[in-house]
Amino acid sequence: MSNYGEPEELKIEGRNPVLEAFRSGKTVDRLYVLEGCQDGPVRSIIREAKKQGTLIRFVPRERLDQLSESGRHQGVIASAAAYPYAQVEDLLENAKKKGEDPFLILLDGIEDPHNLGAIIRTANLAGAHGVIIPKHRAVGLTAVVARTSAGALNYTPVAKVTNMTAVMEELKKKGIWFVCAAMDGQRMYDLNLKGPIGLVIGSEGEGVSRLVREHCDFTAAIPMKGDIDSLNASVAAGILAYEIVRQRG
Amino acid sequence: MSNYGEPEELKIEGRNPVLEAFRSGKTVDRLYVLEGCQDGPVRSIIREAKKQGTLIRFVPRERLDQLSESGRHQGVIASAAAYPYAQVEDLLENAKKKGEDPFLILLDGIEDPHNLGAIIRTANLAGAHGVIIPKHRAVGLTAVVARTSAGALNYTPVAKVTNMTAVMEELKKKGIWFVCAAMDGQRMYDLNLKGPIGLVIGSEGEGVSRLVREHCDFTAAIPMKGDIDSLNASVAAGILAYEIVRQRG
Repeated sequence: MSNYGEPEELKIEGRNPVLEAFRSGKTVDRLYVLEGCQDGPVRSIIREAKKQGTLIRFVPRERLDQLSESGRHQGVIASAAAYPYAQVEDLLENAKKKGEDPFLILLDGIEDPHNLGAIIRTANLAGAHGVIIPKHRAVGLTAVVARTSAGALNYTPVAKVTNMTAVMEELKKKGIWFVCAAMDGQRMYDLNLKGPIGLVIGSEGEGVSRLVREHCDFTAAIPMKGDIDSLNASVAAGILAYEIVRQRG
Repeated sequence: MSNYGEPEELKIEGRNPVLEAFRSGKTVDRLYVLEGCQDGPVRSIIREAKKQGTLIRFVPRERLDQLSESGRHQGVIASAAAYPYAQVEDLLENAKKKGEDPFLILLDGIEDPHNLGAIIRTANLAGAHGVIIPKHRAVGLTAVVARTSAGALNYTPVAKVTNMTAVMEELKKKGIWFVCAAMDGQRMYDLNLKGPIGLVIGSEGEGVSRLVREHCDFTAAIPMKGDIDSLNASVAAGILAYEIVRQRG
């Protein structure tokens, strides 16, 4: 049942393999295309990429050659996740199967793969039903993430979404409340964190973005007694996730 | 007041500079000596190193050449901490100055500098009065630790000790209780974690060693609901430290 190991991020190179990957429904994180390349096959690939919402980067030949593992990229390289992504519905299904109120962790732009891996690990042990990450300006399920998750990626589904706030609005209709982490919030101990909940953790540098924060119902603060600014993002996620565990317990 | 930046681990090379470093009272983490080197000056250096309890490694010339930054090591290289260590008394003094019950974090063999840095960062923000690390089989205050502590190393004292259990016994005489983290302990929410306390966190792979555990008064477990074995060490330290904050609060 477990397929844990140290998978590499999958590189798919060359026109036919890349087109096939898209048509077979494989999740491609990024597509690299040779600058100025406009012929028919490449345009078909770009069309498929746009249909799936894949990020497209037009790069010079030197960059493609550098990325290439096979040396035969023919002007296109697709970079696929080392692990498959789940759908947001899968996360809710996971909660339903266990007969529990949904408990989701949303990451608003975590960039360090060690932090993402550690948070997926925490999500698993705190009994969260899944993790939601954004497509843009964030790390995906790379090999380092898989390794630092210590196997949790085999059990805890991770969904990648294009529009975080649209997903939050959809989930609100299903009765889920959102709490985000910010220093100027209410002390987490004073909030009621029971019931169907989505915990939103901001990026390492910037915290939770203004737009995402505006879609949250509560803002929770971890009490800070020290001299410096903030906790490590994965540590903060762990402390807040376990405050939810305590209140639910 | 703050001297935060990205200091490198200090390498001191050559016979006179190394001997001077020892005699001036600088804390040397490790001394590398050329295998088979037995002359007078080198023996003086080894004698000073032993006096201070510095770890001594006898290594082949290739290894020394590799470690050398100046290319003029003359058979000896000392590796000093990028940051100075505190004494255990300094940690207690820190608590006393703030008029608080001592709250210390003891690390029984953390090897990953990112984990050590994140824990020092957490210690600062959770209001702990200092961190105690062992001299052997653990990472010291390297440049990576300083960087990942996000400045906390400027405020939170870190003491390095040769014999962790002896230090614990000394601290017990001063009224400090010790709680260690282990999966088979009591649920942390059910323990009384108020008063003068030392929180003991085990190493990444092995957890708290048997000997150290035998010197603890309580064993606290973080509730685990998932499929995998354990949390990341710095996340676990954060969750336990903040359970102490909550109970003290």
